[in-house]
Amino acid sequence: MKYQEMQKSELSTILIKEKERYENFKSLGLNLDMSRGKPCKEQLDLSMGLLDEINSVMELGKIDPRNYGGVDGLFEAKKLFGELMGVSPEEIIVGDNSSLNLMYDSIMRYYCFGVLGSSPWSEIHNRKWICVVPGYDRHFAVTEEFGFESVTVNMLEDGPDMDKIEELVADESVKGIWCVPKYSNPEGKTFSDEVVKRFARLKPAAKDFRIFWDNAYGVHDIAENGDVLLNLVTEAKNAGNPNIVLMFGSTSKISFAGAGISYLCASKENIDDIKKRMSIQTIGPNKINQLAHVRYFKSVDNILLHMKKHAQILRPKFYTVLSILKEELQDLGICDWHNPKGGYFVSVDVLPGTAKRTVELAKGVGVIFTPAGSTYPKKQDPFDSNLRIAPSLPPVKELETAMRVFACATKIAAIEKLLAE
Amino acid sequence: MKYQEMQKSELSTILIKEKERYENFKSLGLNLDMSRGKPCKEQLDLSMGLLDEINSVMELGKIDPRNYGGVDGLFEAKKLFGELMGVSPEEIIVGDNSSLNLMYDSIMRYYCFGVLGSSPWSEIHNRKWICVVPGYDRHFAVTEEFGFESVTVNMLEDGPDMDKIEELVADESVKGIWCVPKYSNPEGKTFSDEVVKRFARLKPAAKDFRIFWDNAYGVHDIAENGDVLLNLVTEAKNAGNPNIVLMFGSTSKISFAGAGISYLCASKENIDDIKKRMSIQTIGPNKINQLAHVRYFKSVDNILLHMKKHAQILRPKFYTVLSILKEELQDLGICDWHNPKGGYFVSVDVLPGTAKRTVELAKGVGVIFTPAGSTYPKKQDPFDSNLRIAPSLPPVKELETAMRVFACATKIAAIEKLLAE
Repeated sequence: MKYQEMQKSELSTILIKEKERYENFKSLGLNLDMSRGKPCKEQLDLSMGLLDEINSVMELGKIDPRNYGGVDGLFEAKKLFGELMGVSPEEIIVGDNSSLNLMYDSIMRYYCFGVLGSSPWSEIHNRKWICVVPGYDRHFAVTEEFGFESVTVNMLEDGPDMDKIEELVADESVKGIWCVPKYSNPEGKTFSDEVVKRFARLKPAAKDFRIFWDNAYGVHDIAENGDVLLNLVTEAKNAGNPNIVLMFGSTSKISFAGAGISYLCASKENIDDIKKRMSIQTIGPNKINQLAHVRYFKSVDNILLHMKKHAQILRPKFYTVLSILKEELQDLGICDWHNPKGGYFVSVDVLPGTAKRTVELAKGVGVIFTPAGSTYPKKQDPFDSNLRIAPSLPPVKELETAMRVFACATKIAAIEKLLAE
Repeated sequence: MKYQEMQKSELSTILIKEKERYENFKSLGLNLDMSRGKPCKEQLDLSMGLLDEINSVMELGKIDPRNYGGVDGLFEAKKLFGELMGVSPEEIIVGDNSSLNLMYDSIMRYYCFGVLGSSPWSEIHNRKWICVVPGYDRHFAVTEEFGFESVTVNMLEDGPDMDKIEELVADESVKGIWCVPKYSNPEGKTFSDEVVKRFARLKPAAKDFRIFWDNAYGVHDIAENGDVLLNLVTEAKNAGNPNIVLMFGSTSKISFAGAGISYLCASKENIDDIKKRMSIQTIGPNKINQLAHVRYFKSVDNILLHMKKHAQILRPKFYTVLSILKEELQDLGICDWHNPKGGYFVSVDVLPGTAKRTVELAKGVGVIFTPAGSTYPKKQDPFDSNLRIAPSLPPVKELETAMRVFACATKIAAIEKLLAE
């Protein structure tokens, strides 16, 4: 029965019970952090063989990877990870471990120098950026840092609200959009073919409009039959719109979160433009690490096999989160969520107006969740409803406790609100 | 006897001889590149033990270096390389392999966001930057990229012309200066204590003026008794001017040019400001590589010992360059150079108006030198005189041939010029 349909006296009885439970949690002296999508130790252990490769013979063709050169990465890395991302070696730049850094630098370059000859974005007053919500806080922070006004567009079941986006891009001061198209952060939804095709056909008023397509979870299935995403670089090319997209990815959640490699994929024209600027910025990425990745993974098939091992580790964790949500919170009318088939997060919408209180209550017993609001620009969720759960890092045992705390906190916060109305 | 004092007929005779020699070189079908200061294979081999360290146990204190976190680098790396650079762990940020990237990003941040609350440099019309000449082309390219007008100051025997610098900084639109204070690129000169102290006491009109102090060759002695450089971060602090300097360094020429680590040292106030911006830009550097560097080098003493091995490899190469210069070009009045005690380059001033022709002649027989003009902003040497020789990469045997070609080309170019006058 939904909380909303209960008598206040019934709710008060439940509140007393949940508060007893809460005091119990408090007495346990918990110290659990559920806030960031960090891989767990077992996942990091999967790639230790990569480090063996670093120490094998270092000569590869004519390039000594220990020396200077190759601003856009080792050719072999461009080939393998280009194949993984569905682009040719001339449509990819392979960088160091942070794809966020590649995205930031791409915004920075366009901000300082413009896009393929256009005016620098710094000169556009009232510059705007489309942010799909709920979304990834670090994306929003980058465009906020560069003075973009965030215009929000809701995520629907099959991707963002494309009607709204097509309307917004008629404004020339709208310069781009952040997307996590597969296993979106935080909801774990994947954009449908139709949505990708509409992105490919997008005709923004601004010629320098760019889709920042962060395919962070492109091979990160958890379910046996994962989602399938169309390749926007290819679709955009086919739609005669080749320059509209920059696609990003990394091995942060394939090999090592803190020592992987990252890549930027785009049309040759975009890549050449970016490479020209990069040759002023840097002497190039760590090629030994790129070589080790190439030697260790060898082929796209091996990468996909490797990802199945990650899935085996993550599956019981996601199961724990989703089954406790179902057991404790289904049908109460105070909570909603999507069952993702991959990615790193479970997104939960609690009763509007109670997300902050829920996180605060959990913190009160030593369980840290991502701060309420983080999935919105400026960390302001207008509904105070969306919360992001990151199941990857904690062991299943801790995850169980954390989710019991989450359920208890969600209920207390909801009842407090309903009783006060 | 100086060429300038010879009869034209004598010069013509020498020219005929040198041209015969030139044709001989041509017949050898040479293919030598002397243009970039890349370490040679033997130098890179010195650090292969570093790669063993990568594969040892990865846990270090509470941080798993394989995972996310630590935007400013691993604490242990900040400690060791801070000690090497003469700063505390809170005065250093340790990044990935390219210190050029740290410098570029520092300019970029001040350009986009300003310095400790000042107006962004992008908003300063007619912004200017002091470039010590001859200097490092990649430095000049960065400030040129961001629209700074380069104001040149000559390098004297004990450092740049400080009188001129003190005069220039009275202009508020002058925002900074590039320096390579030890074994300067290209001349291999080291700034005297007095010059460093004058930098420390500098009182620019612009509060957001910054000295970009690229201590790239801080431990790169070649001679037994190398030069000694005062620490500008310390001197500036003592002079009550702590925020004026950003000091840079890297292991590019200690461990691997393409896979080392780099560092930015500055006052805590500067570092905190930069870290705040960096936390938006990146999830942090490759900590496994930083850990490997810490484990392999262990102490500053070990780094200095390691550098002695580099010196052993480089000494015969520099000796070859300098002895051939002396043997062939001394006392002809057409060539001047400085004997460096360390660093990566030998800088040669040929007869004004002949540098381009000298490089062209060498190229004609298959020997590539750094393009004439590279040591000046916009690659324009007003005297067409300065040339940079990079002895590190080629084997001694090739270096000998390349330097004979250089001497021959220098003479031909000089005589051609003198005969035409």
